[in-house]
Amino acid sequence: MSTPRLNSNDAPAAACPLPNSRYEEITLGHGGGGKLTADLIQRLFLPAFGNDVLNALEDQAVVRLNAGPEATSPRVAFTTDSFVVRPLFFPGGDIGRLAVFGTVNDLAMGGARPLFLSAAFILEEGLPIDDLRRIAASMRAACDEAGVTLVSGDTKVVDRGKGDQVFITTSGLGVVPEGRSLSIRAARPGDRVVVSGTIGDHGVAVMSVREGIEFETVLESDCAPLTDLVRVMLDACPSVRALRDPTRGGLASAVNELAEASRVGVKLDEGSIPVRREVRGACELLGLDPLYVANEGKLIAVVPPEDVARLLDAMRAHPLGRDAAVVGRVVHEHAGMVTMTSRVGGERIVSLLSGEQLPRIC
Amino acid sequence: MSTPRLNSNDAPAAACPLPNSRYEEITLGHGGGGKLTADLIQRLFLPAFGNDVLNALEDQAVVRLNAGPEATSPRVAFTTDSFVVRPLFFPGGDIGRLAVFGTVNDLAMGGARPLFLSAAFILEEGLPIDDLRRIAASMRAACDEAGVTLVSGDTKVVDRGKGDQVFITTSGLGVVPEGRSLSIRAARPGDRVVVSGTIGDHGVAVMSVREGIEFETVLESDCAPLTDLVRVMLDACPSVRALRDPTRGGLASAVNELAEASRVGVKLDEGSIPVRREVRGACELLGLDPLYVANEGKLIAVVPPEDVARLLDAMRAHPLGRDAAVVGRVVHEHAGMVTMTSRVGGERIVSLLSGEQLPRIC
Repeated sequence: MSTPRLNSNDAPAAACPLPNSRYEEITLGHGGGGKLTADLIQRLFLPAFGNDVLNALEDQAVVRLNAGPEATSPRVAFTTDSFVVRPLFFPGGDIGRLAVFGTVNDLAMGGARPLFLSAAFILEEGLPIDDLRRIAASMRAACDEAGVTLVSGDTKVVDRGKGDQVFITTSGLGVVPEGRSLSIRAARPGDRVVVSGTIGDHGVAVMSVREGIEFETVLESDCAPLTDLVRVMLDACPSVRALRDPTRGGLASAVNELAEASRVGVKLDEGSIPVRREVRGACELLGLDPLYVANEGKLIAVVPPEDVARLLDAMRAHPLGRDAAVVGRVVHEHAGMVTMTSRVGGERIVSLLSGEQLPRIC
Repeated sequence: MSTPRLNSNDAPAAACPLPNSRYEEITLGHGGGGKLTADLIQRLFLPAFGNDVLNALEDQAVVRLNAGPEATSPRVAFTTDSFVVRPLFFPGGDIGRLAVFGTVNDLAMGGARPLFLSAAFILEEGLPIDDLRRIAASMRAACDEAGVTLVSGDTKVVDRGKGDQVFITTSGLGVVPEGRSLSIRAARPGDRVVVSGTIGDHGVAVMSVREGIEFETVLESDCAPLTDLVRVMLDACPSVRALRDPTRGGLASAVNELAEASRVGVKLDEGSIPVRREVRGACELLGLDPLYVANEGKLIAVVPPEDVARLLDAMRAHPLGRDAAVVGRVVHEHAGMVTMTSRVGGERIVSLLSGEQLPRIC
């Protein structure tokens, strides 16, 4: 049933004869959250499935479920994510915690109150049952911490060598209060870009374990539910225009998505971006740029300039926002593009990565 | 980070010293929809996540999303399923069609009108992009056929040899009309068990391709959305008590789940179970029992005896119910157990399979 491996895009097949061309086969980069991921979405998934909700490319879909005149549906936020992190257990978290908080956070980024989760497990033959038990216990604890209930599940098993221990797909349902409207298309020139804390912690924690690198202090993933931080932020500052959690692809990719969706430019200021000393050191050792390293308990917020001080005060009073900082501003110029002023004053373009910096990080 | 591979159940570790004991590691059987799957759910997932909705073990969770006094939520059905079928393309369908209809059907079994889907893809490095494009196109066509909209998605990529081309997890949202209540716990002695058509078509179609067996006629998967059939059935016969789609584990497993959940016995009549001649022949060749072979476009219904004729008439008038037949009845005796009267008159127990008959069938 195999199909010819020819490029079916506009170019004639003869123009693309390489058997391993990135245009013909899936590469790790297609899962990295950078250019290739965007490419796959724009060229393959949107043409196939395109509709207004999906095209918005928010972290969550917001829909109404109207059953008839007798019931008025609230606005329902709905999202899904697969988790394929390797190793399964790492300092500060595990695949189960990640799978719960990742989906909870995608709901929270739309201003939704997360309520219900589903979890589908793809298990590889030979997985120790005790590992699965440990993951399930961790997911339950994470659900309790985030205030959500797991109400639906599925388990499939694939033969040894056709999976990698366990993959988990969680989907989430939440409710968006009437009148609330957050969107990555809403940034306007003059707005400030705020990050809730130090960046790169999750990716570096996972990579350190994977590469067997030891540091003086244990680097821990920042894996956390952002629901309560978001609640505090929106209570203090209802004018927040957009929220996004900079997971795979890191801060750089999240800000690029924002610039692209809002058709604005963003200028980042390198000196104000909070990065732990140990994370910076580990990144140098591993050849990584912290701007592109995944976070699992951080968010970026876009807010009008007159409200940024109030927002920062509220964030810094919350345990998950202690290190919140203004890291950039939205500009008219270079719409769709992100630039960064370096510590020494130069300005450079911060683009989406075209390849894969950190495979299997979430 | 590995954990000791000891059985953490009540028995002391020394009592279970076998390194490959089925109690210590995941086996293919844990994904087969039989005894081991039930075991994993009862012993691991329910103790970890147990709540009233999950414990009900319906094909879908039904929840209310109340956002406050300004909005009254309809009853929302929510379900998730992963699809790992091998090969990706088979006569009558492909993994994408299966992933859409599988989730749509799980919603329909609760009497819900399916509305929205999410899809999360786990791709293996090296997957031909044209295969993915073909799958996406097929999913879109399936969504249109079933009247649902795909509103949320995710893509992850795993390294070559750590996945198997593509796994898809779909989740679905639907609305259950007020007053409708279908449940596998609702069967009562005297009720009739109806099946909507021939059984085993999907599993045999997939296995034939996988094993390279050719028949005079091509055996096709029955893969189809059951929403419209359910609508017709419930319109004609609102007294239907329970619906279930007999996917992996087949008719035998679905009826066992019903008997267990409703605490009733079920007596099947072998002679009335519709099986295509070709499927029966293929099963003999492949050493399979059609009772346990997966279906992807069939359902079983439980209905009070006085309404069964009306239900059958309605079903037989629908293209997906033409071969509908009464295949058994619910009894007081042997609660939780299913028996079958054979063509020659003997009666035997039809239990859940303890192993795996057909791995990776959906």
